[in-house]
Amino acid sequence: MEIPVIQPPLILSTWHFGRIANRAGWAVLSEGGNALDAAEAGCRAVEEDPSVTSVGFGGYPDASGEVTLDALIMAGPHRCGAVACLRHYLPAISIARRVMEKTPHVLLVGPGAEAFAAAEGFPQRPLLTQEAREAWERWRQEHGSSSNEKLLRDSSPGEETHDTIGVLALDTAGHIAGGCSTSGLPFKLPGRVGDSPLVGHGLYVDPEVGGAVGTGHGELIMRVCGTFLIVEEMRRGASPAEAIKAALERIHRQCRPDPRQQAAFIALRCDGEWSAGCLRKGFQVAVRSATVETLTEPHLVLMQGD
Amino acid sequence: MEIPVIQPPLILSTWHFGRIANRAGWAVLSEGGNALDAAEAGCRAVEEDPSVTSVGFGGYPDASGEVTLDALIMAGPHRCGAVACLRHYLPAISIARRVMEKTPHVLLVGPGAEAFAAAEGFPQRPLLTQEAREAWERWRQEHGSSSNEKLLRDSSPGEETHDTIGVLALDTAGHIAGGCSTSGLPFKLPGRVGDSPLVGHGLYVDPEVGGAVGTGHGELIMRVCGTFLIVEEMRRGASPAEAIKAALERIHRQCRPDPRQQAAFIALRCDGEWSAGCLRKGFQVAVRSATVETLTEPHLVLMQGD
Repeated sequence: MEIPVIQPPLILSTWHFGRIANRAGWAVLSEGGNALDAAEAGCRAVEEDPSVTSVGFGGYPDASGEVTLDALIMAGPHRCGAVACLRHYLPAISIARRVMEKTPHVLLVGPGAEAFAAAEGFPQRPLLTQEAREAWERWRQEHGSSSNEKLLRDSSPGEETHDTIGVLALDTAGHIAGGCSTSGLPFKLPGRVGDSPLVGHGLYVDPEVGGAVGTGHGELIMRVCGTFLIVEEMRRGASPAEAIKAALERIHRQCRPDPRQQAAFIALRCDGEWSAGCLRKGFQVAVRSATVETLTEPHLVLMQGD
Repeated sequence: MEIPVIQPPLILSTWHFGRIANRAGWAVLSEGGNALDAAEAGCRAVEEDPSVTSVGFGGYPDASGEVTLDALIMAGPHRCGAVACLRHYLPAISIARRVMEKTPHVLLVGPGAEAFAAAEGFPQRPLLTQEAREAWERWRQEHGSSSNEKLLRDSSPGEETHDTIGVLALDTAGHIAGGCSTSGLPFKLPGRVGDSPLVGHGLYVDPEVGGAVGTGHGELIMRVCGTFLIVEEMRRGASPAEAIKAALERIHRQCRPDPRQQAAFIALRCDGEWSAGCLRKGFQVAVRSATVETLTEPHLVLMQGD
């Protein structure tokens, strides 16, 4: 297969709604803006879109009916910030950026993250849409009142959406940055945090090498620090495609994914070479540059037969 | 320097209070118990000790006066569980183990983690000791009422304690496991979560290779997935000492630690070879086996001059 190398600026985003992210991010990049602003703008656009039921406003709530958001933004080991289990505030990606810029910390969670967002001047906003509330009410009717045992069994429906927005951007100056944002598994056990807000799990960026973003069942990615593993493989000379293959094979061998569980990655090297791969079919990548605007299949589907 | 290889069973723990952990863990290992039980028992013993002001009961609270706990237990990619920003419940390490055993998830945070602990039958317990309250009140008097700006500036006092209990255990059967537990930076910004509860940050264990635990300023370790990096280096043939050196050099080069910031690691290969290293002097490792019971200096101090 042809190795995809695209002249920067370039933006790559996960899933079909990655086109929404790319449109917003491209508006930044095409004007000579920087990769960090583009990654933030891309994630923010998807967070604000109520039709995306796995990210931001309109995201499906947890088992208790509460929408909680996770987000991470990263331009390098020294430049990253994240929030997890954040209620009541948007955009999570911009609050994550504020953690990076205004605190010595990397990750704020729960009520503390909310207090930080308030102190930084973000207004409270309702995150639960009518459609998401109705979906939750249907789920609750099907699953009865929520004993803990029952929630544990039912709060990870494999067939449901689990679609993080993940963005990697490379700007004209050759700087790379990424962002990811999600409302997590629909009807999840309250307090459950997946890969998205964790450095080297849902996203890793090293300006010396490149970056990677992950999406799918977060636990599969968390258990092997999936995006950090990909960047380490690239650091040692692997192509983006080879690095993704190594991470997917590690997940397949060590994490015992069940047949419904997906894990998918995009990797981008600082020279513009990129790739995408996933455990099973269904993943798509939105690509945007000066010459390309497309939604494409990943280069590798590890388990073709499934 | 002599390469330390110790015949299993073996338990290694961070800091002087690692001796408390080793005593409890050794009681398990010496009776033929398994590494996971030993790691849990070791962390639990330190959590229960009110004299340790950076872990569990007796840990210093956050800036708002609330004690919040982070813990991770791990025996391999498929066997790990964690809690973060957990109030009111002990032992955090045992609740983390319950996350691993009873849920499909890896990480629960905040009020959701507390609800899970309650549903699993853990009783609420006061975590704030008189001594910790008095320390917090002194800190508050010195730092005045807490504007957010002020908290951001003051909530990471470099000279204060930042001493996670980290445990690595290797049992008679050759199985490896680890645990880590902390109350985090004293008087931290509420909601701040460090490396300890995050897979591949504060702890990583792979039964095919070995394990590593980290302690010190969590953010330094988070930014480079410090323990995952060490285990990956060992997977490719590095000795524990070489792997730790690589992680410390990465932190030094990429994370710009200020002169007060410490990062320290212990690494243990499944054959019993181990090492310990740190950015600057001050770190100690507690070692316990059938023939050794000691508190020792690390093999490597990267920045001898500081």
